[in-house]
Amino acid sequence: MALERELLATIPLASAMRLSIADYDGDSLTIAAPLAPNINDKGCAFGGSLVSVMTLAGWALVKLATHARGLPCDIYVQDSAIHYLAPVWDDFVATAQLGEGETFAAFFDALAQQRKGRLRVRCVVPLADGSAAATLEARFVALAKA
Amino acid sequence: MALERELLATIPLASAMRLSIADYDGDSLTIAAPLAPNINDKGCAFGGSLVSVMTLAGWALVKLATHARGLPCDIYVQDSAIHYLAPVWDDFVATAQLGEGETFAAFFDALAQQRKGRLRVRCVVPLADGSAAATLEARFVALAKA
Repeated sequence: MALERELLATIPLASAMRLSIADYDGDSLTIAAPLAPNINDKGCAFGGSLVSVMTLAGWALVKLATHARGLPCDIYVQDSAIHYLAPVWDDFVATAQLGEGETFAAFFDALAQQRKGRLRVRCVVPLADGSAAATLEARFVALAKA
Repeated sequence: MALERELLATIPLASAMRLSIADYDGDSLTIAAPLAPNINDKGCAFGGSLVSVMTLAGWALVKLATHARGLPCDIYVQDSAIHYLAPVWDDFVATAQLGEGETFAAFFDALAQQRKGRLRVRCVVPLADGSAAATLEARFVALAKA
């Protein structure tokens, strides 16, 4: 996918984490990461990697939505809240989708009218049993390019 | 510093980010990072790098306090709240100190009595003018090693 190549080419840490976009259907986006380059001192996934992968999944979800609309934007994360719930001892994925009550329609309306739109996104790193190892809720702002 | 060598040796992403511990006085700890390995698609600091460096600064502050007391612990981040306030276009540092109202005394009491202690830490990535480019408030848990 073009965005995966762009991520790996322009963000050295995405390359160091060996990320790949594993799934995208317009409403949710999943990024996969192998454990080895993302371990901490305890041998499980480094918190910085978990939050980076979750943040990038949210960022990519917003980025690809603006691409699909033909509205090139710079997308920035504004704030986020993270819960680390269980250690991750294996390769992992992070899946992003819109936050509760958020719609792309309202976001694109704001972007069309003010050249600026905001979206809340929620992301999760699931464990094999379906429970969450980590969650992130983040707010992104998109600024239309001139 | 021994902890810096440990970080770089055991956390591949700390090495990829080219981190160094720039300052430590017992009450605050500062980690420095060059911009180049930490850029995003826009050429400023990647949000994942900012949060990773802030989280590691907090983690290292707690880790070194337990080292100094001769209490080897595993330290985990439990949750965090991050605000990205301004882009960072240069090499940067993240400084961690205890959160409002937190004391090492209460933390060490809990650790002695329950072999488990919690600490809230606040971190900031300052800009040259002294304002904050990013802030993080995080809660860490320390588990005494057997």
